[in-house]
Amino acid sequence: MTSTKSLSRTAPSTVNATTIVSSLLTVQTSGRGFTDLTSEIAKFVKEMRAREGAVTLFIRHTSASLTIQENADPSVLRDLTTALDRLAPENAGWSHDTEGPDDMPAHVKTMLTATSLHIPVLRSELALGTWQAIYLIEHRVRQHSREIVLQFAGETS
Amino acid sequence: MTSTKSLSRTAPSTVNATTIVSSLLTVQTSGRGFTDLTSEIAKFVKEMRAREGAVTLFIRHTSASLTIQENADPSVLRDLTTALDRLAPENAGWSHDTEGPDDMPAHVKTMLTATSLHIPVLRSELALGTWQAIYLIEHRVRQHSREIVLQFAGETS
Amino acid sequence: MTSTKSLSRTAPSTVNATTIVSSLLTVQTSGRGFTDLTSEIAKFVKEMRAREGAVTLFIRHTSASLTIQENADPSVLRDLTTALDRLAPENAGWSHDTEGPDDMPAHVKTMLTATSLHIPVLRSELALGTWQAIYLIEHRVRQHSREIVLQFAGETS
Repeated sequence: MTSTKSLSRTAPSTVNATTIVSSLLTVQTSGRGFTDLTSEIAKFVKEMRAREGAVTLFIRHTSASLTIQENADPSVLRDLTTALDRLAPENAGWSHDTEGPDDMPAHVKTMLTATSLHIPVLRSELALGTWQAIYLIEHRVRQHSREIVLQFAGETS
Repeated sequence: MTSTKSLSRTAPSTVNATTIVSSLLTVQTSGRGFTDLTSEIAKFVKEMRAREGAVTLFIRHTSASLTIQENADPSVLRDLTTALDRLAPENAGWSHDTEGPDDMPAHVKTMLTATSLHIPVLRSELALGTWQAIYLIEHRVRQHSREIVLQFAGETS
Repeated sequence: MTSTKSLSRTAPSTVNATTIVSSLLTVQTSGRGFTDLTSEIAKFVKEMRAREGAVTLFIRHTSASLTIQENADPSVLRDLTTALDRLAPENAGWSHDTEGPDDMPAHVKTMLTATSLHIPVLRSELALGTWQAIYLIEHRVRQHSREIVLQFAGETS
């Protein structure tokens, strides 16, 4: 199962880790689904004059979460929603149901995805792959206001 | 599927990233279930005089993991346990069974949750949401001693 | 469900967080399966003279991911592959299928595992547990070239 492999590594780039910049991003979701945050995070990186280091996102909720996923075909996001619904269906006999049938599935989906993300910044840009976008996933049916702590740690210019 | 959105971002706070403080936390679990580490991590932040930056937790095991989840209703933790059991049942014909029927499900549950967590520290406090707690999840049936590396990176006072 | 617990914490070690070293690792996978990156990451830590801090890995793809899992018995990796196949089967009626039947399951598996990892470095060594190894998981059937950004943040010697 462990694949044979061929590895190569570029010459390292070294900077002084001088600065941490923190900000709170508030996102109004419009109910269940994905919100693309990529351009907003790129704007944060640019405005903070981040040069090299990493951006972290931390969502302050347990029924909404974060993921990095394909940005090209919207059917991917639709299928990811289907996949999460199958892994945590509403009619699964949850004991915690006082906040509605979509609440406990939302907690399970949050547990299975990410509460925080870490994205490197290189040469003043997010080091995302060509097909990667940063998403907030709203797991509740109704719209919510969601808070995400943004932090850049590294060298600024 | 991609929601329309409304975004706002606060003015940034900037500090010098001067210090990394590391410590090893050992937790005795009492078998399968959740252990709330929030107050212990808050104590670490306070004692280290952490002011702004982030705390990371890294669990040095592959059959126990970490998550950030709801802290209010204990039935949520019960349902999360049920959800993990359904996603990785004991009687699923695993080929790795020499360490007991709960071992391979424990590895799967670890893979589906988190080995490390990242929590921002702002104004000398963990920037957790109102309903968020930091949990160790013991996936083995019997009690274990579990090691977690704690690190604060940022500005201390 | 919340277990009773017994906690102990070692005396902290404090260093100046002076340096961020970044490098790009390229891995040729040989199709679906796990590639053990542990020795390569350990080599990066050693060559960069990392002393205390943390290494992060970030994979620049949405159909391959990262995990920290058992390094001893190869049957664990086989069972983890089976588990992921059950959670995201090929024949599940995905709407996104233009890139082949293994593509959408690959996105789901990526969402359920990790796009980034964070591993502490203490006394010039990765602070992995005895049974932990760092794996790239190739979720596509065919071989791919995968890029991972490595960063060490902390004190070097």
